Formats: sequence, C-alpha cells, structure tokens
Amino acid sequence: MNSDTALHTDHYELTMVAAALRDGSADRHCVFEVFARRLPLGRRYGVVAGTGRIIEQLRNFVFDADDIAFLLDRKVVDERTADWLRDYRFRGDIDGYAEGELYFPNSPILTVSGTFAECVVLETFILSVLNHDCAIAAAAARMVTAARGRPVIEMGSRRTHEEAAVAAARAAYLAGFASTSNLAAGKRYGIPTAGTAAHAFTLLHDDEKAAFASQVNTFSKDTTLLVDTYDISQGIRNAIAVAGPDLGAVRIDSGDLSVLAQQSRNLLDELGAADTRIVVSGDLDEYSIAALAAEPVDAYGAGTAVVIGSGAPTARMVYKLVEVDGKPVVKRSENKATVGGRKTAVRRHKPTGTAVEEIVVPQGTPEPKPHDRPLQRPYVRGGEIVPDLPTLADSRELLRRNLISIPWEGLKLSQGDPAIPVTMEPGQ
Amino acid sequence: MNSDTALHTDHYELTMVAAALRDGSADRHCVFEVFARRLPLGRRYGVVAGTGRIIEQLRNFVFDADDIAFLLDRKVVDERTADWLRDYRFRGDIDGYAEGELYFPNSPILTVSGTFAECVVLETFILSVLNHDCAIAAAAARMVTAARGRPVIEMGSRRTHEEAAVAAARAAYLAGFASTSNLAAGKRYGIPTAGTAAHAFTLLHDDEKAAFASQVNTFSKDTTLLVDTYDISQGIRNAIAVAGPDLGAVRIDSGDLSVLAQQSRNLLDELGAADTRIVVSGDLDEYSIAALAAEPVDAYGAGTAVVIGSGAPTARMVYKLVEVDGKPVVKRSENKATVGGRKTAVRRHKPTGTAVEEIVVPQGTPEPKPHDRPLQRPYVRGGEIVPDLPTLADSRELLRRNLISIPWEGLKLSQGDPAIPVTMEPGQ
Repeated sequence: MNSDTALHTDHYELTMVAAALRDGSADRHCVFEVFARRLPLGRRYGVVAGTGRIIEQLRNFVFDADDIAFLLDRKVVDERTADWLRDYRFRGDIDGYAEGELYFPNSPILTVSGTFAECVVLETFILSVLNHDCAIAAAAARMVTAARGRPVIEMGSRRTHEEAAVAAARAAYLAGFASTSNLAAGKRYGIPTAGTAAHAFTLLHDDEKAAFASQVNTFSKDTTLLVDTYDISQGIRNAIAVAGPDLGAVRIDSGDLSVLAQQSRNLLDELGAADTRIVVSGDLDEYSIAALAAEPVDAYGAGTAVVIGSGAPTARMVYKLVEVDGKPVVKRSENKATVGGRKTAVRRHKPTGTAVEEIVVPQGTPEPKPHDRPLQRPYVRGGEIVPDLPTLADSRELLRRNLISIPWEGLKLSQGDPAIPVTMEPGQ
Repeated sequence: MNSDTALHTDHYELTMVAAALRDGSADRHCVFEVFARRLPLGRRYGVVAGTGRIIEQLRNFVFDADDIAFLLDRKVVDERTADWLRDYRFRGDIDGYAEGELYFPNSPILTVSGTFAECVVLETFILSVLNHDCAIAAAAARMVTAARGRPVIEMGSRRTHEEAAVAAARAAYLAGFASTSNLAAGKRYGIPTAGTAAHAFTLLHDDEKAAFASQVNTFSKDTTLLVDTYDISQGIRNAIAVAGPDLGAVRIDSGDLSVLAQQSRNLLDELGAADTRIVVSGDLDEYSIAALAAEPVDAYGAGTAVVIGSGAPTARMVYKLVEVDGKPVVKRSENKATVGGRKTAVRRHKPTGTAVEEIVVPQGTPEPKPHDRPLQRPYVRGGEIVPDLPTLADSRELLRRNLISIPWEGLKLSQGDPAIPVTMEPGQ
C-alpha cells in the first residue's frame, strides 16, 4: 500500500499537538465524530465505505525516524512533540457504521475517542479515506440500481489518481459492481478483474480479423471482442467469422448505444450467435445506464463517472470534536446543525422491515423500539482492532439489503430529499 | 511512495500483451500519444502536470514475484506472458510537454514509443497520473490568477483520497500556490507546509483565550489564530489581548467573508494591530477568491475546490496508438479529430512574445518560423531517464511565464474558447 501513512496529515494537526502537549491539554479525553452535514445535491442516500481501509492502515500510522527528522527540520514540531510522535500509536477506541450502511445528513458514521492528541492526528487521514470512498460508493450504488441486475464492470482507473483508482474499484465492488479492470484492486482486495482488448490491439494488427483471431487463439471463443474500431456491423461479422457463433461477447465503446445495441443484437441473432453477449461502455453514468434498460445489453462498463462520484467527487464529511472530558462541546453554529456530545444512532423500521427514520441521540441512548437496529459497531478498542470485522463481501451484502429496506422513492435517480429523515432525540 | 506501481494497470493491457506475444506483434514499433480531445467546459487552457511523477515512478514499474503469482493464479496471463513480465522494464522513449506548459485540445502532451507490449502496459498508469494532476493544476492556476498576487494555501487533503491529496498539493504548488497543509507533500516534494490550529483546539480548552495563549506560547506571536469558533469580533479582541498588536495573522473560516474581512480589518486597526494579516478560508474556489479581490484579505486557504478540480476532477486525457512500424494508424473517428502519425508541436508567438497559435504536425516537422517555441522535450531514451529534467520550481516558473504569454482573454474565469487555437498542419 502506501508508506508515509502518518504524514497523510495536515500540518496543523501536529502544531495543535505541540501546543496541547505544552499546556497539558493533550491528554484530555475527547470524542470526535465524522458526519456529513448534507448529501450531494438531490441525492437520496449516502453509502458508508472506506472504514475498512482506515482500519487496515491504522497499524501503519506511525511516525518513523525519517518523518520525525523532516518534521524537526521544517520546525513543524519541537523536540517534545517529536518524542511524543516517536512513541505514537493510536491507543483509543473507534466505533462506526459498518461499510455498506446507508447514511443521511448528520449520521455519526465514525466515532474516534481517546486523548485529544492521539485522536486529532488521525483527522486528515480518516477524512481523506471516507470522503473519497463514500463518494464513489454512492455513485456506484446508483449505477447498480440503474443496471437492474445486469452486471456493471468498473473501468475508470485511468481517469483518476493511480491510488485513488484502487480505492474506487474497492468502493464500486462494495456497491455491487461485478468486477473491475484494476489489477491492484484484484490483488489487494480479491476483487474479480476483467478486460480483454482496447482499440490499440486492433490497430496494431494488419486488419481487424487478424486481431480477433489472435485474441480468440489466446483466450478461446469465450472472450469479448471490441467491434467498433472501424465499422461496427463489419466488426461483428468479422468477429463471428473468426470466433464462430459461440463467441462470448462483443463490446461497443462509442456511438449511440441504444441504436447500436439493438442493431448488434439483430445482426448477432441473424449470424446464429444468439448467445453472444453485448457489453457496452463509453462515458456511462447512472442516467445513461438507466436509459439503456430496454435495450438488449448484457453488461455495462462504467469508467469516468464512477471514479469521479458522478458529479459529487467528495462526500464532504467533517471530523468534529464533540466531547471533552465527558462534556459536550460545540462551535458557534450558523445554519449548521452541529450538536455536541457523543451520539448514538439507530435505524427505525416498520414491522415489514421498511426503514422509516434514523434516530440520533446526542447523549445517552435511544429509547428502544421493537424494530430498531443499532448502526454503530466497535472497530478498535484500546488501540487493538477488534476481531471478526466485516469482510468486503459482507459489506456488499449489507448494502444490497439496505437498499431494499429504504422506501422505494429512495432509489429514484432524480433529485429529491433523503430517503429517510434523521431525527435528533433526547436520550434516556 | 506506492508499491504495486506496475499493477496500477487495467487487466486488458496484459491480455493484449499475452495475445500479441503469441501472434508475434508484441515487438512492433509503436508510438502512443496522450492528449485531451477538449478542455473542461468553458476552460481556456489546460496545465500539464504529473509528468515528473510518471518519470520518478517509472523505475518502480516492474512486476515482482508476488504480482506475477497473482496474475498467474487469476489466469490474467499465461506462463509465456509471465516470463515477459518478469523481465519487463520500459526500454523505449518518452517525450512530452514540460510540466507547467499550457495545453489545448489535441496538444500531444506525452509521446511514448517502443515495442507495442512495453508501451501498452504503461497506459493506465500514465493516464491516471496525468488525468488527475492536470485537472488539479488547471483549477489551481485559475485560483492563483484570481488571487492577484496574494498567497493561496492548499488545504484540501481531507476532501480527496489520501494519496491523491499528496499529488494535488504538488500540482497546486506547481500552479503557483504558496504552500500546502499536506505534510507528506512537504516531505516528498519539498513544498512549504503551513497550518496552525482548527476549531477543535479552541473547543479543547476552557475558553478561547486559554487556547490562544497556548498557541502563542508555543509558536510565538507570529502565528495565525483562528477567531471564528464562537463570536468573531470577540475572537479578534481575545486574540489581540493575548498576543498583543504584533500578532501575525487571524484566520476566518466561515460566514460572509467579504463583510467579515472588512469588519475584522477595521477592528484590528482599531486595536492597533495594523500589521496583523487576515487569512480567509472556507469552501473557496476561483470565483469566490475573485469576489474578495477588493477586500482586505492577505491570504486565502483553498481546500475542496482545488482537490476536486473545481468542477473538472479529471482531464479526460486519452492514450492513443498513432503509429505502427512507422505507419500512421487511426480508429474510425466519429466527431473525433484523431489523426494518425507521431505529432510534433510548436507554439507560435508574435514578436512581442504573445502566443497566437499552437501548430501540430502529424508527420514530419513544422516549417520553422522566427517566434516558434518547440513544446516537446525528451524525458526517457532507451529506458534511461535523461539527465537534468526540470525541477518542480522550474515548472512553477514555466507556468507563470506561460500564463503571461497567452492573450489576456485566456485568463478570464468566465467560460470561453481555448486561449489559442491548435492547428494541424502538414509537415515538411
């Protein structure tokens, strides 16, 4: 993964530690919470993703000799702070929503507690991970809904930062994508990878048939031939001529995909290739996927739109200090519904299982109701990662079930209100 | 930096290599070019950034035993391809625009030549870096223009992927930002880092004065106090009461910054703190920075907008095969001005130095004119990185000069056409 994990940190986190060590406040017991004040414009839900990445990198969040030398040299910290950083590892607690949970405005999706100093240095890193991964997962979930059960392949790596691409592939898979083109994501997270050929492969060869023959020879008839390098109809004829009617699939990456999918299906059927699938790609987002629902498409490849969060590339989460030594604290709030105190959250359901409300209690716990489900779970206790955390497969399944549980309007792609309200209630 | 560099690659790059090795086309001499078909909506120029990151990671772009085992296990590649990958290092040539050059639609910003196989495996990684870094640099350059010489601090790390944040800080610095909050960027690239305290630091303390006193004790009067945790006017009074009238700066992170900057300046002057600077932050983008031009602001902190490219989070660059064994190749182009053949580019200027046109010649070289400047330079020859590549400081200076050289309309923030046209001309 990355080295430098602990320097994925804003300068001011360490100056705050330095000043707090000197004035004695560094050891005050604090609670920080991560939440989004609002969803991206018109979105009806958010998807929690990234917590697993935070936890897996937490043990690497240490300051090595090189880091310390840099910080001293640049006068970011003094010797006393350098000593503290040398010894740093997080020894506090982390609780939060599981990956694959839905969230809404002000849902307290992650709670970090411990001393001020040990918690504050995690701020930037935690927010970076959640702001990126939640943004991708929400966009991907909408595409999966739009695809109505047809598989969606993530192929956006080239359109985002090389490491963000790996995290994006993970978030998209969590959200229900079938596979990714990203090999690092395959290796690191066990996500299925997919891909056959680009236009360059056809252009490399003397003609299209030669390229197709090479691909079929190497990967058998059960491959996907890209048929739109020159003329699509001729491409399909060439594909079937070379591979025979048992060809696995053709891919179309340009043009009016509605028209081309139908024409290609007709032509394939005509050529006796009734089982040859049609994969379409080319700047697909949730809206263009939805628009292809009635066409004979067997799988979608989604690239740019998923890795840039389809218009919302960051989840705009914040990491706020809500409690110091057991007392709630809060910044002067100006149209900001920030409430002090450590929050507990449950999702309330009808007896049928449909979610109706999220209850958030700033201090204490919610009065229990029969169909409530607690939303927070322990991740770290006293610096130790708790055993048996959910796997990526678990998170994928949790999201699938969550998306069934919300009122049906929540799945609409059009702009609207959050699928369920979040209500701040006094605890008991 | 990252391990896994060589797996920052799409699955299909390796299947293409496998098929090409088998059919004998893997060793054909190929030229790939990177370009953007268009600029983001209404943008007047693009900024080349990221090439330095590609070059520095190129030597790590090798497949280790773990990678190969993964690829074989998943049947991404066969044994023959695995052997080729074990031996892989790029032995071809790379040429391109220097970082800090401007680009326009179809500017050939990077040219990769060598065998098909050795060039095609670099596609995803190269595009990831350029698509990200160019997007950030362009947005950042617009903010620097809007700031009219006042320093801009990059503080967006928390709103993007943790590694993308480091690259974003680099791109923003290249574009003229004064500093970054990101410590990893400080360590890795020598970029100045900055930061003092967040609202949490004030909330941690018993009252605002205690927090300010702690910060001043640790960092001297020449620090920046964040004055908007509670009441801003009282915050400024507290700041000056604690630090005295020689306080370095105050920072305001919320509210109507135009009004608050003026009120704060008046109050500071009244309190005898005429030299105390005012730093403003809080969801600033190029437009809100421009709107503050007349206010008594001394520095800007820009966060979210810069790391997400201010509405254009990816540069949408493509990596296209343009030549095979010396012959131009081209995909059927449908409203796509893709032209085959290896391109040479120069920027043409008036005798005054104002750029008027970019000339791109698909084969051959442009007819020389007196005020032409060649835009491509060698980066890699036969797999070896050429010596004396431009430093980050060089690139920053190049961009500064480039932005002076384009027609003045090119610097407008409003939507418009590219600042200069790109003309495809026959070569000589």
